[in-house]
Amino acid sequence: MEKIFWSDYTTNEIKNIISEEDPLVIITVGATEQHGTHLPLNTDTDLGFNIAQRIAKNSPVKTLILPPVWAGFSPHHMDFSGTITLKQKTLFNVVYDIIESIIQHGISKIIILNSHGGNMSLLKTVVDEVGINHNISPILVTYWHLISSQINAIRKSEMGGMGHACELETSLKMVFSPQDVQEDLMEDVMIPENEFFSVDMFAKNKIGIYQPFKNWSESGQIGAPTLASVETGEKILENIIEQFTELIKLEWVDEDVNEKNN
Amino acid sequence: MEKIFWSDYTTNEIKNIISEEDPLVIITVGATEQHGTHLPLNTDTDLGFNIAQRIAKNSPVKTLILPPVWAGFSPHHMDFSGTITLKQKTLFNVVYDIIESIIQHGISKIIILNSHGGNMSLLKTVVDEVGINHNISPILVTYWHLISSQINAIRKSEMGGMGHACELETSLKMVFSPQDVQEDLMEDVMIPENEFFSVDMFAKNKIGIYQPFKNWSESGQIGAPTLASVETGEKILENIIEQFTELIKLEWVDEDVNEKNN
Amino acid sequence: MEKIFWSDYTTNEIKNIISEEDPLVIITVGATEQHGTHLPLNTDTDLGFNIAQRIAKNSPVKTLILPPVWAGFSPHHMDFSGTITLKQKTLFNVVYDIIESIIQHGISKIIILNSHGGNMSLLKTVVDEVGINHNISPILVTYWHLISSQINAIRKSEMGGMGHACELETSLKMVFSPQDVQEDLMEDVMIPENEFFSVDMFAKNKIGIYQPFKNWSESGQIGAPTLASVETGEKILENIIEQFTELIKLEWVDEDVNEKNN
Amino acid sequence: MEKIFWSDYTTNEIKNIISEEDPLVIITVGATEQHGTHLPLNTDTDLGFNIAQRIAKNSPVKTLILPPVWAGFSPHHMDFSGTITLKQKTLFNVVYDIIESIIQHGISKIIILNSHGGNMSLLKTVVDEVGINHNISPILVTYWHLISSQINAIRKSEMGGMGHACELETSLKMVFSPQDVQEDLMEDVMIPENEFFSVDMFAKNKIGIYQPFKNWSESGQIGAPTLASVETGEKILENIIEQFTELIKLEWVDEDVNEKNN
Amino acid sequence: MEKIFWSDYTTNEIKNIISEEDPLVIITVGATEQHGTHLPLNTDTDLGFNIAQRIAKNSPVKTLILPPVWAGFSPHHMDFSGTITLKQKTLFNVVYDIIESIIQHGISKIIILNSHGGNMSLLKTVVDEVGINHNISPILVTYWHLISSQINAIRKSEMGGMGHACELETSLKMVFSPQDVQEDLMEDVMIPENEFFSVDMFAKNKIGIYQPFKNWSESGQIGAPTLASVETGEKILENIIEQFTELIKLEWVDEDVNEKNN
Amino acid sequence: MEKIFWSDYTTNEIKNIISEEDPLVIITVGATEQHGTHLPLNTDTDLGFNIAQRIAKNSPVKTLILPPVWAGFSPHHMDFSGTITLKQKTLFNVVYDIIESIIQHGISKIIILNSHGGNMSLLKTVVDEVGINHNISPILVTYWHLISSQINAIRKSEMGGMGHACELETSLKMVFSPQDVQEDLMEDVMIPENEFFSVDMFAKNKIGIYQPFKNWSESGQIGAPTLASVETGEKILENIIEQFTELIKLEWVDEDVNEKNN
Repeated sequence: MEKIFWSDYTTNEIKNIISEEDPLVIITVGATEQHGTHLPLNTDTDLGFNIAQRIAKNSPVKTLILPPVWAGFSPHHMDFSGTITLKQKTLFNVVYDIIESIIQHGISKIIILNSHGGNMSLLKTVVDEVGINHNISPILVTYWHLISSQINAIRKSEMGGMGHACELETSLKMVFSPQDVQEDLMEDVMIPENEFFSVDMFAKNKIGIYQPFKNWSESGQIGAPTLASVETGEKILENIIEQFTELIKLEWVDEDVNEKNN
Repeated sequence: MEKIFWSDYTTNEIKNIISEEDPLVIITVGATEQHGTHLPLNTDTDLGFNIAQRIAKNSPVKTLILPPVWAGFSPHHMDFSGTITLKQKTLFNVVYDIIESIIQHGISKIIILNSHGGNMSLLKTVVDEVGINHNISPILVTYWHLISSQINAIRKSEMGGMGHACELETSLKMVFSPQDVQEDLMEDVMIPENEFFSVDMFAKNKIGIYQPFKNWSESGQIGAPTLASVETGEKILENIIEQFTELIKLEWVDEDVNEKNN
Repeated sequence: MEKIFWSDYTTNEIKNIISEEDPLVIITVGATEQHGTHLPLNTDTDLGFNIAQRIAKNSPVKTLILPPVWAGFSPHHMDFSGTITLKQKTLFNVVYDIIESIIQHGISKIIILNSHGGNMSLLKTVVDEVGINHNISPILVTYWHLISSQINAIRKSEMGGMGHACELETSLKMVFSPQDVQEDLMEDVMIPENEFFSVDMFAKNKIGIYQPFKNWSESGQIGAPTLASVETGEKILENIIEQFTELIKLEWVDEDVNEKNN
Repeated sequence: MEKIFWSDYTTNEIKNIISEEDPLVIITVGATEQHGTHLPLNTDTDLGFNIAQRIAKNSPVKTLILPPVWAGFSPHHMDFSGTITLKQKTLFNVVYDIIESIIQHGISKIIILNSHGGNMSLLKTVVDEVGINHNISPILVTYWHLISSQINAIRKSEMGGMGHACELETSLKMVFSPQDVQEDLMEDVMIPENEFFSVDMFAKNKIGIYQPFKNWSESGQIGAPTLASVETGEKILENIIEQFTELIKLEWVDEDVNEKNN
Repeated sequence: MEKIFWSDYTTNEIKNIISEEDPLVIITVGATEQHGTHLPLNTDTDLGFNIAQRIAKNSPVKTLILPPVWAGFSPHHMDFSGTITLKQKTLFNVVYDIIESIIQHGISKIIILNSHGGNMSLLKTVVDEVGINHNISPILVTYWHLISSQINAIRKSEMGGMGHACELETSLKMVFSPQDVQEDLMEDVMIPENEFFSVDMFAKNKIGIYQPFKNWSESGQIGAPTLASVETGEKILENIIEQFTELIKLEWVDEDVNEKNN
Repeated sequence: MEKIFWSDYTTNEIKNIISEEDPLVIITVGATEQHGTHLPLNTDTDLGFNIAQRIAKNSPVKTLILPPVWAGFSPHHMDFSGTITLKQKTLFNVVYDIIESIIQHGISKIIILNSHGGNMSLLKTVVDEVGINHNISPILVTYWHLISSQINAIRKSEMGGMGHACELETSLKMVFSPQDVQEDLMEDVMIPENEFFSVDMFAKNKIGIYQPFKNWSESGQIGAPTLASVETGEKILENIIEQFTELIKLEWVDEDVNEKNN
């Protein structure tokens, strides 16, 4: 099978791939931060990177994956040991410089696959800056946003159950890295929502706030990990991959067709 | 009637208000940018600032308004004459420094009232930085987000009709500044949506991209300004104010009650 | 009458004005800071913005006014409640970005009308940076500098009477915003000068220093507001407008004539 | 066997390890850049990260490894496709922020294991900044520096043979990732040295210069990969690990003994 | 005689001087830039540094001199070969860091002696930043400002004759470094003034602008060097020193007396 | 004799020299920092600047010297009074801006002559940035590195004797500025080395660390100043000049010959 990792190629090989196949490049941006009592610090990075590999294998266009940006914007988790955080400016520049490097080599199809909530706004500001300076727009996808229409049919938890180290993340970990899930330590922490704000990943929040995680949850997790299962993880993953495949088709396959027809 | 503008007070007056009434302060952040063929460059700033005044007059807590931050992040509108844009770093620092100044004078209740889509992500990064450094979270509200549950009952346009210089903004302008609306120049520009992205203000977009506005619309507007009306504007405004009032009560009135009860 | 505010125009209107009339654009930079016991925080911004409007109405060339930059460099006033200050870098970037935006739309006649002493040096560094990068020099005018030859015939106070919230500013406020002047709270604070430095706005200071305002004056004002009057304000204003008109003629009307003659 | 990767632990586990074992943390900093005709872009990162794992397994003190910083300072390789480079400021901040995060969690024993020549000076400036601000000095080790006394007894190539994608790197790759070595594409590129400067990794250069790699070598590699072998790789590795073990003992084991004796 | 240069002392000596004599420290900031046809690039730096030495020898308080900051802000001279310019940010930081270093060693009496017009505004922003962060105000003196009341009795040239490489600078050079003055190359360049702006060093300019020097003068100088003389130079110098002595007495001798009396 | 200092020329003279002789320019970067009990703060700057003058007088190509950058990166010496330090960013920008200025005037032969150990890594990052942006590589030389092959035949001290204010620096000072050496205060401070690190200037250190100087030496010096002598100083100097001459020949004379031959 073909190699999907950018860095596994030699310079000559990558040069050929770019000129012949005009590949899509996925940059995953995760975090190294506390994930409650039962999941390891690698959770966000691990999930994003594994999802990217599944996408690459199913992608309708040649797809390459960069190594993961494994440190994100996590100051709100710094009360919890092990968390590593980059300053906003630092994370901005890392992702920006990486994208600028690949653009310089001729890449124009770029997905930033984000797997950490705390990175969302900042990564959008990176997309904007790339757009201003390079006339290319990376597509920013926080992976769970892609399945917002599907999730209610899948989840077992009610609103509040998918927050952090929650039903969703634990289920996906069970699929990708079951050895990382300490099931005996799983504990649910449900935070009541209000009309303007909920900690649930699928909430349609009307306001933006900053909150140290310790204020939400002493143990670090938010949601219902005890409702997680491999089956749920697999359904979620399947839907994510489907959506990504459709997105890639919409953006780059149909477009190519359209262009050829003109 | 009492003065609602921060700057209209003397230093001694403001000192007394802060120590006796612990006021809420609203910072409006808008833009000076093209608003299609029929609305002036002031549109975003004007709407945000007028809404803030209505909020202040209806607020359950003492509320003061700062002068508007009238230049936002608008590089995607720079193809259109008259647009003024700040670099991301500049806008970040302006809003950050203003907030830091009022925090230094003892203010802890802060709403950032945003009225320009392009500012959203950047302003969230400001909220985060304030939160990290000051243990206070300003509440970021992009005003139309507050009425996402109500809008479908109000709007005449279908999805795509509320984008930029659209049914919503034109209707609100008709309420606040009818002299600014050149009805004879109104023209609808409808952009088809797809499953991942729509230009409509109320779309639940699953991806983030950058797009120069010229690529969407030659004339600058997006949506259906011809469906705008004073009546629609008044309904929208009424709902916005109701929601803001509720938010303020939830955040600061009930909290005070709770604290007193403890 | 024609609209004098940049932002009140649509993008198409402003485009036409620029290409047909090559307008002068005035950016007023003020402050939001304590102005003693009897004047509000808005004083500097209000005065600069009102002066700009008078200039525009009397200008020999088409003149447009941007919204005011209402936060300046005021750390020396932060001991007084209500003062809002931008860091030097922030103020630099705000004014720089605004100017760069209008230059991009074709503006080459630019006046920075400053109404706050604390902004003077910093704004000169902005002028320099614009000059280096754009081959256009904005003209920086701190408004009272323009009437240095006339003021002695107008002022009632001796040296030291025109400092901050003083005879000059109070008189001008009486003209533009009489409701803002709390005459019963007016109190003179006279600081002795020496041969190298005086706090008077018209002093020819030989040295540059930094001093927190509290060290000069417990109450915030410096000078003789009790000598202020509407008549004085009107004379001052008349002279300011005359000087600005002459400056504009010298810079842009005569120049055009000269160029036409070549 | 015990887990050696920082991120594989939960927050509670890492907290316990830190308080009970005061572990050494290794941060590897590599690069993603061209490595000639026969080695992949991952070479530097892969070598550093594999060496770190061997160190951890042999370390006389509890040792944890962070995920690799896989993008380095490589502008001189940007003529070669696939190379990714961070700006100096960006790389500085990434490494600095990571170190500051772990210091905040109580780590004081830190090794920065560098595997890319282009990073050396910059990483020393990071060490300095950490030292100034935190009273802790990370130890910066560019791995091949550790075996400068041993290398002559091991290498087959003469001076110039160990530069980039060379005898040394190819031999180590043969040990760690033989599948990455395309032996049929190996080709030697020998650059003559002078008395002040040589491209050899073990040269004692008397001057510092900047040179785009293309100027040295059209194909990207410098040195004698054809002299590489698994045996050489194993000898090199053995010596590296020995030296690291000794260094760790000297810095942290003997020191602990000394402190206990006081 | 006692050494007047900070750097000529050992660390122990300087420590004693600081604790026993609380010395005044002078930082001269000049430029390396074209000075017309007859004066060398060193002119500004040389003049400022020589003046500082005379001050130190006449000073009523123990006075030490730092080495000169010999590169200033001179982009407007870059059309002329040999000019060296620092970016504004760079010059700001150099002077700021130097001042912060000596403050850390206990110095509180500081004069920034500026000898280049282009540095004036920027150095005032440094004074402000030091004042904000350290509660100490350096005193900024552009040396010719000190003799604005005396100059008319001394100068031979009319307004416009003292600009750059002019009557004043040439006369001072004749006193300090006669070998640097190529009298046969002296040539006057007189620029007409207007009511708002003159290039003369003693003009009371009402506006601030940026102008590349080439636009003023093809040859680089502005003013009347042919009217320069040693006698004029000596009179100017005498007055400068008198004024500095008085300033030092006013700031630090009388103050000490005052404090002792309290 | 011809003038060797850049700043002693007029703009026209320097323009001619550049176009006719394509000169080498030397920038010396030193420090103002404690040099133990017997040497003044000026030591590093003084040595570098004197060496540069000797080089210029012996140089096979036309050579000009800029004024010294007399403040370096010395935070590790700030415990000792009198030390002046620039932040890393500041020193970077100063040297960068100076080099950019002379490149703009047509200079392409540049030596950065460093005389302070603390500046080494940072100056290499400057060389890199110049190389990236200007396609010109300054040559960075820390002067003692040039004589690493010769030193053992000259030095009287064993390893550890040449560190800071040591046998080498004291001997050179005895040659250049004997009045600066307080021989009665000389005292040796020998720090034991280990296999990875030694404080000796000629050590081939295998690791990089940060250490406040106070931790090494209470009195500030490291090494054996009591073994210094004028004779040693002269031998060292002679070797340095020889090496520099050879380097210049290699880089710019032979190259010119080569180019001419093609």
